[in-house]
Parts: sequence; structure tokens; C-alpha cells
Amino acid sequence: MGKRDNDKPDSETAGGLSRRGFIGASAAIGAVGSAAGLLGGGLLAASSDVRAAGQGKADVAPGELDEYYGFWSGGQSGEVRILGVPSMRQLAAIPVFNRDSGTGWGQTNESIAILGESHKRGWQNGDTHHVHMSYTNGSYDGRWLFVNDKANSRVARIRCDIMRTDKITIVPNVTSIHGLRLQKVPKTGYVFANGEMIVPQPNDGRDLENPANYWTLFSALDAETMEVAWQVWVDGNLDNVDTDYAGTYAFSTCYNSERGVHLGDMMRAERDWVVFFHVPRIEAAIKAGKFKTIGDSKVPVLDGRQAAGSDFVRYVPVPKNPHGINTTPDGKYAIANGKLSPTCTIISLEKIDHLFAGKINEPRDTVVAEPELGLGPLHTTYDGRGFAYTSLFIDSQVVKWSVEEAIRAYGGEKVNYIHQKLDVHYQIGHLKASMAESRDCDGKWLMALSKFSKDRFLRVGPLHPENDQLIDISGDKMVLVHDGPAIPEPHDCIMVHRSKVRPKAIYTRDDPMFAATVAMAKADGVDLEKDSKVIRKGNKVRVYMTSLAPSFGITEFKVKSGDEVTVVITNLDTVEDVSHGFVMTNHGVGMEISPQQTASVTFTAGHPGVHWYYCSWFCHALHMEMSGRMLVEA
Amino acid sequence: MGKRDNDKPDSETAGGLSRRGFIGASAAIGAVGSAAGLLGGGLLAASSDVRAAGQGKADVAPGELDEYYGFWSGGQSGEVRILGVPSMRQLAAIPVFNRDSGTGWGQTNESIAILGESHKRGWQNGDTHHVHMSYTNGSYDGRWLFVNDKANSRVARIRCDIMRTDKITIVPNVTSIHGLRLQKVPKTGYVFANGEMIVPQPNDGRDLENPANYWTLFSALDAETMEVAWQVWVDGNLDNVDTDYAGTYAFSTCYNSERGVHLGDMMRAERDWVVFFHVPRIEAAIKAGKFKTIGDSKVPVLDGRQAAGSDFVRYVPVPKNPHGINTTPDGKYAIANGKLSPTCTIISLEKIDHLFAGKINEPRDTVVAEPELGLGPLHTTYDGRGFAYTSLFIDSQVVKWSVEEAIRAYGGEKVNYIHQKLDVHYQIGHLKASMAESRDCDGKWLMALSKFSKDRFLRVGPLHPENDQLIDISGDKMVLVHDGPAIPEPHDCIMVHRSKVRPKAIYTRDDPMFAATVAMAKADGVDLEKDSKVIRKGNKVRVYMTSLAPSFGITEFKVKSGDEVTVVITNLDTVEDVSHGFVMTNHGVGMEISPQQTASVTFTAGHPGVHWYYCSWFCHALHMEMSGRMLVEA
Repeated sequence: MGKRDNDKPDSETAGGLSRRGFIGASAAIGAVGSAAGLLGGGLLAASSDVRAAGQGKADVAPGELDEYYGFWSGGQSGEVRILGVPSMRQLAAIPVFNRDSGTGWGQTNESIAILGESHKRGWQNGDTHHVHMSYTNGSYDGRWLFVNDKANSRVARIRCDIMRTDKITIVPNVTSIHGLRLQKVPKTGYVFANGEMIVPQPNDGRDLENPANYWTLFSALDAETMEVAWQVWVDGNLDNVDTDYAGTYAFSTCYNSERGVHLGDMMRAERDWVVFFHVPRIEAAIKAGKFKTIGDSKVPVLDGRQAAGSDFVRYVPVPKNPHGINTTPDGKYAIANGKLSPTCTIISLEKIDHLFAGKINEPRDTVVAEPELGLGPLHTTYDGRGFAYTSLFIDSQVVKWSVEEAIRAYGGEKVNYIHQKLDVHYQIGHLKASMAESRDCDGKWLMALSKFSKDRFLRVGPLHPENDQLIDISGDKMVLVHDGPAIPEPHDCIMVHRSKVRPKAIYTRDDPMFAATVAMAKADGVDLEKDSKVIRKGNKVRVYMTSLAPSFGITEFKVKSGDEVTVVITNLDTVEDVSHGFVMTNHGVGMEISPQQTASVTFTAGHPGVHWYYCSWFCHALHMEMSGRMLVEA
Repeated sequence: MGKRDNDKPDSETAGGLSRRGFIGASAAIGAVGSAAGLLGGGLLAASSDVRAAGQGKADVAPGELDEYYGFWSGGQSGEVRILGVPSMRQLAAIPVFNRDSGTGWGQTNESIAILGESHKRGWQNGDTHHVHMSYTNGSYDGRWLFVNDKANSRVARIRCDIMRTDKITIVPNVTSIHGLRLQKVPKTGYVFANGEMIVPQPNDGRDLENPANYWTLFSALDAETMEVAWQVWVDGNLDNVDTDYAGTYAFSTCYNSERGVHLGDMMRAERDWVVFFHVPRIEAAIKAGKFKTIGDSKVPVLDGRQAAGSDFVRYVPVPKNPHGINTTPDGKYAIANGKLSPTCTIISLEKIDHLFAGKINEPRDTVVAEPELGLGPLHTTYDGRGFAYTSLFIDSQVVKWSVEEAIRAYGGEKVNYIHQKLDVHYQIGHLKASMAESRDCDGKWLMALSKFSKDRFLRVGPLHPENDQLIDISGDKMVLVHDGPAIPEPHDCIMVHRSKVRPKAIYTRDDPMFAATVAMAKADGVDLEKDSKVIRKGNKVRVYMTSLAPSFGITEFKVKSGDEVTVVITNLDTVEDVSHGFVMTNHGVGMEISPQQTASVTFTAGHPGVHWYYCSWFCHALHMEMSGRMLVEA
């Protein structure tokens, strides 16, 4: 089966360091012109599978459970996905910024309340990039997931007990939230979000054609309230972000320090930078009232631009257009990935302390190594045993290297810090090892999120799946064990040990998701767990009904064409997994009601006639007979 | 890892035939009352995994291809999914009735044109049930897929060259399209679609409370034009449908011959029926003008009710509330599944010929066997070696049995036609063997689509995945080899050998999907493959641009707030898999543009200011820099 013509091995010398000078200052501009050639070359460079031999068993037998929850951002799909690892089976899709036909996300009154302003604006798409779980003392606490939306500049929160989105915030003053990470210590008090694209401040029509007055901001959201606590005005486009294990810093890569608006301009400078934010000093400055606000927004904004000379922001120059930034699990280093440079830059967080304390004057003196790794380094992850794993987009490889050896080499010692390069298929973006972004980094599995799959799967038309490749890193050598096709674009992921996550099997009746609906019922004199009632107020009709397999509490109700009908269903089933659905035929109406959940939907009654509603979740041998009639009079 | 408390073996005598009398006439009514108990019992009855031992290897190594395309209906998700079999990896999601954030389905002008009336009505949900591939001479021809929407009474067609929906038809005069199958011989000229729920005819407000005047219709769509060619008025609720291998018949199960509107009424009769439609005679009757029309619809409707005594419809009584109907691959029999009876009914298609020819007078005389199989038989599939495999919903089992042995037993011979029962987990609905609905039935794999997964996977909150279980049927015994979690509800599937499907790697420029957009450009004097131009007509602005990694052909354009902006993008990349995306930030706008595709989207320019657009499909090392600005003036 299926080995392809272009699946030819490529030697490490051809695919690796020997090409390292290629993306230099002028070569990079050339690369833009010959984009198709560069890309084609990269695609042809990938190669040689290594199959599991003893090490690396991704198979999970029927009836057995995966060891890890994988939380995947869904990219343009606007959702977040849950996979089991190592089986790589998708267990759930959590609708976030998208519209979901199955659950009725974006149509039920409960989800509309959460979508809020996004719903009012008619937004039905999103572009989720970075999903992260809340921490307590640097360990995952299983409480929330947070994820950004690059498309419409938002941040969302997901409750891990029911795996549903419960808050969405539109971040003001910025265009495109790209990087997103969480405060790790003492707990996730802040969600840090990078504004990526530079725009006039305020963006109200002024300075349209004067990019010299375009700027972006770094934002901190309060994890509890999901309100934006403060913003910091910075130089350049913010890309990715990470935080330390001390509770002091957040730090963001910047890929357009030139603040250009065209591709060529964005690559002029030999170096861009990593921006370090000193959180306690920022809080002090806010408290001291040293902020301003922008336009209609009430969010306090501090000026962290270099020219402002603040005490809470420092800019550390690194080679051009860096992309990922990743803290080592021992908390010692932040490692920035070169993208257009074949290097990573290792910055000592202890030296950052000294920089902010004034003991170091030159920001570059916080750099303790700048190892050469290969072409297109984008992200780095860790195994907790001193090794780093960096994705090489152009080389289509994962490189395993030693952080301490790289530091010794930077000090002049002759040491080969590169331990292995493994081909991936193809054009890897993010990569992530199990538990690698927590104190509990365990070095078992590594996920390589490859952007192209080309010929790795059965062809499904012009739009190809991406390829999430599972690599066993538990031994000396990385071993590729599984190719996982993915609906574009699963931008990033985390893998969390199952002991950290404790979802509910059924809803509890006091769930805040439907508290407003419960309150509405109470005001209508309805006991949701007992009553099935129709209440009419003018042309507004509320239809309260229970569901218990295989019956709805009401099997017919009468309305007039054009009435505003709200159907409220409470699922009385208490058996795990006995979800019901409610579909009103020929009305574009459908939603999920899981055990002990209340859900509601409002729609306009259509043309006069008989309109059946039915249960859309297979619930019982008599599921098909679980239906009722809406009788619509003229 | 993970064996659970309720995963206890259950003996075949307890779970199997000894309970067969349970769902008799009066017991069935009792079952409604004790619904939770019945269901709970079923859930606890499932058991004992059998692991692959030599036979049954679902693992597909990295870089190797699956042998089969699996096409899955997505149920309430409104989509169709493509999986590789046997790896069970999802390769693609085809948006059909749903709204897709990633590709912009429901937002691009090209998709809006296909959604048509559904878009005008604001419908964004669907409930796909049965997906089937077009045939030539009884073999899959790789041309189209067809799928029904139960929620909003529609049928859609998918082009298999690009795996995109190209036609959606709202079927008139019916509520809920449930069963859907295709003419197999000489080719798929008709798509047969069962109207499920009974409504007044016409459904315009008359007879609201007079169910005696509720009826449903059987519909035939022309596969080429997707227009409804004719309908047949029938008795009872139509459930599932299948066709023969001679080009003569379609036949539908009926689960509510009583034409009741409440659960109890729908189960009164001891027998419902299978309705046989004689297609050539129907065509002759239409040609002879023996039809009427209903309400505003122009579709010719024949009266096929029993009272009308037509020559083109026959009703064959079968035990109560039958569900699935499945033609044996040798074309000899149609097998109806009992649902509330523990039996399947084997109907000889040769005897159906005799029934229509008047050589047989009593419809029941076409029945050649009625084997007892277990509780809740829903669907039957085949291996091409004489065995049938029936799903038992209540028993949570697949039963393997011999068709010819069952016929011999019905004739009085003492033969045990049941060869094996395999537990599945849990509550199986559809099941399907590879190629089983074609002449090329090959008996390799069987898919068991289990409706509940309960404890088989890591818990992901109250809404559980379903469980698609892969079973190796190539040997004497069925062997369960893989548990596949699925986002609800993957109602049904087919497995088609990869030799039958030949999708394109990139679009061709003459693709009808964007022909209207190409014509619009031509009228505007724009050469889509060369020009990047802005054309203004009043407050309507058309922005034509190319895309070639990593650049858009236009990097800034100016409009006024409130303008109607249409962005048309032509992806000039010719390298397989180099798709681009277009997202207009903070406007809720996003779409896919694959190689050589043209796609367009129309939106209203928002508030004055700078609004960036960017490429949302990772396309190049400089992908993040692939962006441009919409400058919006007051």
C-alpha cells in the first residue's frame, strides 16, 4: 500500500545545517520571489518513516482508555477539539466561535447569551490558534481552557467540567489576537493575549494611510471575569507569548519591529525582539494611575513602547521574525524560535531579573545561547530530561537537541548539541510534548502538527487534511508512530494527563449555563422538572416541556403563523449518555439537550399547517416515534 | 487501563432469543412506560470484547494508505464525513446543510448559490442520515454522493471529484426526508427519498387537527437535475428504502401504518408493511397523465394508497414497526428489519414480480422466511458469501446468520441459521459491510454504528461521542478490532474501495462551482488569472485579487463605511495542497481558496479605520506576513 514517488529519503546534510545560510538578509527577500520553488523544495525534502519497533505503541484496544486528553485548537473551524492520546481518536468538538448544527450552538438562547456581542454582529466564524489549560502552582488544574480567535480578535473560555464555552470577550483596541498563554504561578489569574496587527490608535478612521502611527497592544484578561484588566502599548507586531514559573513575566515574540505594512518591509531588519512584560510592575503602574484609555474603551493602557522608557517592559533583540516562544519546564529559560533565522535564542530568565533590576544594561546580554538548528524553526517543546524539540518548517523536521549543551557550545565548548533529526510530513508548524507546558512535563509523546499532508492519505479533493504526527519520545530516539489527518487547521494542541481532568457525566440542575432559563421559567410559574406547559403573552409563546426517552412532555401545541415561539426543554433522563435532541422540521431549528440539562430556542412560527418536531439524538428503541406536532393556524 | 464495572459479560440466553417474546403486542406498550428501565437494561447487557488475534488488523502505518473510503453521514452536524478504512481516521468533512467556519460554506457567494432557498430561509442546520454513492450497472461509479436531511426535508448531491456539495433540493409536500437510496441499474437515474411524517395535503392550515387526513409521499428525484421527477402518495409513515439490481423496484418500510400521531397509536397494529414501487409502471402512469399536483407544487403525484388499487404499488405486511430494508447483493431478496419484532422478514423479489404480474394474489406469499434474530433488529448487511449481519439495538449485538439457512428453516427444516452474536458497545443503529450495497460486495469489514459509548472513552462532559466499531468479517468469526468515537450523529455510512473514487488534486479553471463568478469577472473586464483590480459601482465595490504564496495580489484597497464589498480571490498556486484562506478581521468573514480555485464573499464594510485581511491557511514560511489592509473611510 501507498508508498509514493516523492517519498524519497533526503540526507541530513542536504536537508539540515548545510542550507542554514540560505535565509539570510538578502536571501530572504529572494525567497519571497521564488516562493513556489522554496515551498516545492520543502515538500520534496521530507522523507523516511521510522516505524515503531518495541518503542512507541499508539494502539489503544477496544474498551481501553487513552492516557492523555489532547486539546486541539481547530483553526479556521472556529472550534476546539478533544482527542484521546495516544490513540489520536477525536472524542468531542467544542463549538466556540463557530455555528454548530448539532448542538445548536449559536441558535439556543443559552449559547446566544454567551456569544453576546459576537452574535449581535452576526459573526459566525473564528480562527482558533492556541488552547491552554488553567494552572495552579504551575500544574494543570482541570478547571478551564482558554483559546484565542485571530479572525475577530477574541478570547474564549471553556469550562472543563462540561466542556462547553462559557465566556467570549472581544478585545478592544487590537486587530487579531494571535499568541495566547496563561499565568502559571501562583495560579491562572491572567490570560495574556497578543494583539498581532498594527492599526491606528484609536482605529476610528484617522491615520488610515500613515502606518507610522499604527500600533498594537499586549492584553491581560482577568481569568475569572474574562474582562480585559489592562493593556500595554508596544512596538512591532506581537506574535507568540509564554510566561514563567515565578509569576513575574510574560514575554512575546515580535515579527515586525519595522512596523511595515508590506511583506518586504516586515523583513528588513536583521533582528526583531522578544518583549518582556514585568507583571507586578505593570500592576503597580496601573494602581498608580499611570494609564490612559483609547477611544471608547475603558481598559487602562500603559505605554510600553521603547521610546517611553518604562520600568515594566524590556525588548531583547533576537534574529529576524521570530515566531514561537517557549519556557523550559524548569523555569530557567525562554527560548525564541528564529523562523527566518536557522537559530533559536535561549534567554536566561535569571538574567531578565538582572535586566529589570538594572544589573544588566544590554538586553542582548540575557542571551545565553543561540544554537543553529535547521531551516524555519517555529516552536520548541521539552521532555523534562533536558532535551528540547524544535519544529523546522522548511526542513519538515523535528530536531532534538540539548539545552545545556547548546549553552556550553555558545560558551565556546566544542559540543554537538543536536541529537537527532526526524522527518515529518510535511511543513510542521506547532509541536508539543505531553505535559510540556507545566511543571509536570513527562516526556512521553510529542505531537508534530504538520501543515501539509500532500500524499500521506487517500485523496479527498483539492482541500487536503493536515497531518498531526504522533512521535514517541520516551526513549533515546524519536519514533514516528502515527499519521493523524486533521480538518484544517488544528493550529496547536496540548496533551494533559487524564488524572488532571474530571468532566461531569450529566449536568447538575444548578448549572449556570441555563440559570437564566430556569429563572425565566420560575417567573412564568413553571417547574421545569415537572411541568409541560404552554404560556402565551401576546404573540410570544413559551412552550415548556420535559423529555424522557422516548417521549416529549408535550406532543402537540398550537400557535399562529408569525408568533415568536420559545421552546424550553428539560431532559429528565438521568442515565449517562441519554441525550435528546429537538428539531422543529422545516424551520431550521435544532439543538441538544443532555441528561438533566435545560435548553431553549426561539424562532418564528412558519406557514400555516402541521409542523412536526422530533428527537434528533438516538435515545431508545422507539426513538423514531419520539415526536410531536406544532399546529400553526393562519 | 479502563475496563469498567458495568462491562460484564451477559449470556446469550439472557441477551438473546429467550427474551424474544418481550416486545409483543401488549409488551411493547409496556415498554414505553418502562422506557428508562428497558434502555438501562440494554446498556448493561453489552459485554465482552474480542480482540484481534491474527485476523483483523486496523492499523495503517504512517505513510500508507487506507484501502477504503468511508463516507459517513454526520447526523445533526448536517455534514458528510470521509474516513479512511480500516484506520478509521477522518480525512475530510464535507459541509452540506451546515454552516462551516473554515471553508466559508454558507458565506461564500458560490456556496450561497448552491444553498439557494435554504439560505434565503436562514436555515443553518441539517440532519443527514443516509449517504449513498451513484451506481452504474450496480457498481459504484465514483461520480456523486447523495444524502438526505431529515430536519428540513431536503436532498443534497456531492461531487466526488472535488468532494463538495453542488445541489440541494427542498422536497415539496413532505415533512422529513428519512430513507434515501439510489437506483442501481442501469445507473443512478433516480434518487429515491422517503417522506417520513404524515401531514395534511396540502399542508396549508387545513385539517390541522384531523390526522385522518394526514399523509406522506414517496419521492423520486432526477439524479442529473436534482429536480423532483414524481411522487407517490402512500399509506403510513415511510421509514427506510432500498432498490433492486434489476431497475424495477424501490421498496420502503412503513412504521406507522395506523397513521397515528401519538406513540401508543403508532404501535397498535401487529403488522405494518413494506411498500413496493414498480418504477416502470409509475413512469408509464406519469406519462399517461394519471397524476395530480398538490398545492403550489408542480410535481406530478400519483395515488399509491391501498384504497386507490393502483397497478404500481403493493403493500407486503411485515411484523410491527419495521425499520431498515436491505437488498441482498445477489439481488434475490429484500430483507426488512423488525425493530419491535425480534425478526427479519425475507421477501423474494422474484415473487414480487409475480405479485405485480398477478400470479400471486396474497402479498404475504412473497415472504420466504422470517428468522428470529434477537431484540431490536434495525439493519442488515452482507458479506457476499451468503451471510447476513443484523444490528440488534436492544441486545447491543451484531448477529451473523445465513440467508439460505433461514429460508430452509422457514420451510420447516431443522437448521440453526444463527452463526455468531458479537456484543457491541452500545445500542447499535446502522451497520454496514464494505461494498455491501453493490454488486461488488467483498465481505472484508463491517462497521457497527453504536449510538451510545457510555464508558468506552475518556469522559468529555455530558454529551458523549457515539462509537463506530470496526469489525473484521473476513474470517469465520466476527472480530472487533477498533472502537471509533464519533461526533453525534454519524447515522449511517458506506465503505467504498479506493479504486472506485478518483478525486482531483487541484481545481480546473472551468469548474462549474465558480463559473458564475468567472462570468461576473468577465463582464467586469477582469482576467481572474492575471488581474488584481478594484471596481466600484456606486456603493458596490468588487475587489479582484490573486493569491500566490505568500502574497495576495492586492495589499491595500479603500472603501467607505457601509459599502457592499465583494472580494474575489483566485488562487494561482498549482502545487497540490497549497490552499489559501481569506479572513477579513473583525468582520466575521472567512473562506478557503484551494489551488486554481476562485472564491468570493460579499460583506458590508464596517466602521472607519484599518481592517487587515490575512491568509488563514498555513501556506509558506512567510504565511503570517501574507496580509493586506482594507482602509475604510467615513
